[in-house]
Amino acid sequence: MAALAPHTGRAQVVGLTGSPGVGKSTTTNALVAELRRAGRRVGVLAVDPSSPFSGGALLGDRIRMQDHADDDGVYIRSMASRGHLGGLSWSTPQAIRVLDAAGFDVVLVETVGVGQSEVEIAAQADSTIVLLAPGMGDGIQAAKAGILEIGDLYVVNKADRDGADQVRRDLRGMLSLAERRDGAWRQPILKISAARAEGLDEVVVELGRHHDFLRESGELLRRRTRRARQEVEAIAVAELRRRWADVGRHGALEGLATDVAGGALDPYRAADALLAAHAGAEG
Amino acid sequence: MAALAPHTGRAQVVGLTGSPGVGKSTTTNALVAELRRAGRRVGVLAVDPSSPFSGGALLGDRIRMQDHADDDGVYIRSMASRGHLGGLSWSTPQAIRVLDAAGFDVVLVETVGVGQSEVEIAAQADSTIVLLAPGMGDGIQAAKAGILEIGDLYVVNKADRDGADQVRRDLRGMLSLAERRDGAWRQPILKISAARAEGLDEVVVELGRHHDFLRESGELLRRRTRRARQEVEAIAVAELRRRWADVGRHGALEGLATDVAGGALDPYRAADALLAAHAGAEG
Repeated sequence: MAALAPHTGRAQVVGLTGSPGVGKSTTTNALVAELRRAGRRVGVLAVDPSSPFSGGALLGDRIRMQDHADDDGVYIRSMASRGHLGGLSWSTPQAIRVLDAAGFDVVLVETVGVGQSEVEIAAQADSTIVLLAPGMGDGIQAAKAGILEIGDLYVVNKADRDGADQVRRDLRGMLSLAERRDGAWRQPILKISAARAEGLDEVVVELGRHHDFLRESGELLRRRTRRARQEVEAIAVAELRRRWADVGRHGALEGLATDVAGGALDPYRAADALLAAHAGAEG
Repeated sequence: MAALAPHTGRAQVVGLTGSPGVGKSTTTNALVAELRRAGRRVGVLAVDPSSPFSGGALLGDRIRMQDHADDDGVYIRSMASRGHLGGLSWSTPQAIRVLDAAGFDVVLVETVGVGQSEVEIAAQADSTIVLLAPGMGDGIQAAKAGILEIGDLYVVNKADRDGADQVRRDLRGMLSLAERRDGAWRQPILKISAARAEGLDEVVVELGRHHDFLRESGELLRRRTRRARQEVEAIAVAELRRRWADVGRHGALEGLATDVAGGALDPYRAADALLAAHAGAEG
């Protein structure tokens, strides 16, 4: 990582997230093809934060993406994040950094929008695409709950189906209610048909526009510094947790937790004791 | 908190979670009434981890719960967790502890199952109820993604509607695929109509059975020790984050993050530097 650091920062990191069934892998596939037509090298990280139950479907997705298997301007890697400390936030930044240093112009991080993964992906990307589709039941309900705060581009897939325009109108209505600062980015809402490879050219154009906006506004550096801060914190916290669990046979933390569970100690004093014990041990 | 500690550990902490629209507040209301009939004092924490967009609906929910306003065996408190560091995990344990020490027999923590809140609630509860309803579109899809790992009781609300039996069958099918250790709890799947106050007696019975199971198997102490460990860790980590952000005018962390974002430093060396600086400063 020390050797890679000077070579990082050139790629545009694009997050792509959406509920199960909106067509994420088909869209990733079509978007990769469009970016290749524009001459960009593309690294894809397909991150699966879900439970073992969907393992099979994810594998199927990967097989479909073998369209690009012969193109050395494309690198595709599936990653499981389940069970990793911190989910996406732990292993993904390292993989992004490697692809960035390897010279890919775009690093596309695809993840299914369940749990906290969609928020985590937005924290790691320069530009986040939220993918929607008509007929997803409570798609827009889900949208209310979180995706309105994370999307830089909204893309409605399956544009040939009934209801695509309605999804776009609903979304536009909800976005218009959100507060916007002067000079803030106005999120475009695009329609595509990933299966027919229609509309992806516009997505590539808007990704470029968003990258320019981030650079010119200073937001790119702010986002990347914030991301670096979270990553450094996460690594430091993970190291401390390891130390806390490690001291003695059962660990200082385990003993303190037992006292708290039994009512002999409150958690604030326990936390103070933990920090005091380790500050001494490490100073 | 130090004064409360000796008085804690008596209440059964019950988490109740489900997607928007399954009838959480109606079910909470009906369950509180049923627990009161059984002579139990009930504290309710309605935690809202969502975005500002659903603020109105949540307020409406609270108003419906004023059925119990005159009953001093019931305490109801809405809490917003959005923006709090760590979401639910930060403020909820403290509120649970206060209600426990105040002598409530059951502390019911209700939260909408979006983002990571359903996993967090399960980590804090002794017994977790996952609420489902027919006609929720991709309800079972969502179920696959996470709730199969957190439910101790599954409750299908709106049992009078078409599809309730199908939801139960689907769920039973999925649960039967999960690995079970010998002697593990077999999650019941109950049907209720919260609006008609039907079936809640069975929920109360099963909650009692689960509490007995937890005690007798030793799982209650294990869960509570694990919870205490997470809480102590969270408090210690929050305190460290405060210190890391605080040193000097811009903070040691901010400077390190700027170096990482600019490619001058890798995040692992930055984390080491952060820990070294603070071990010295605090030792």
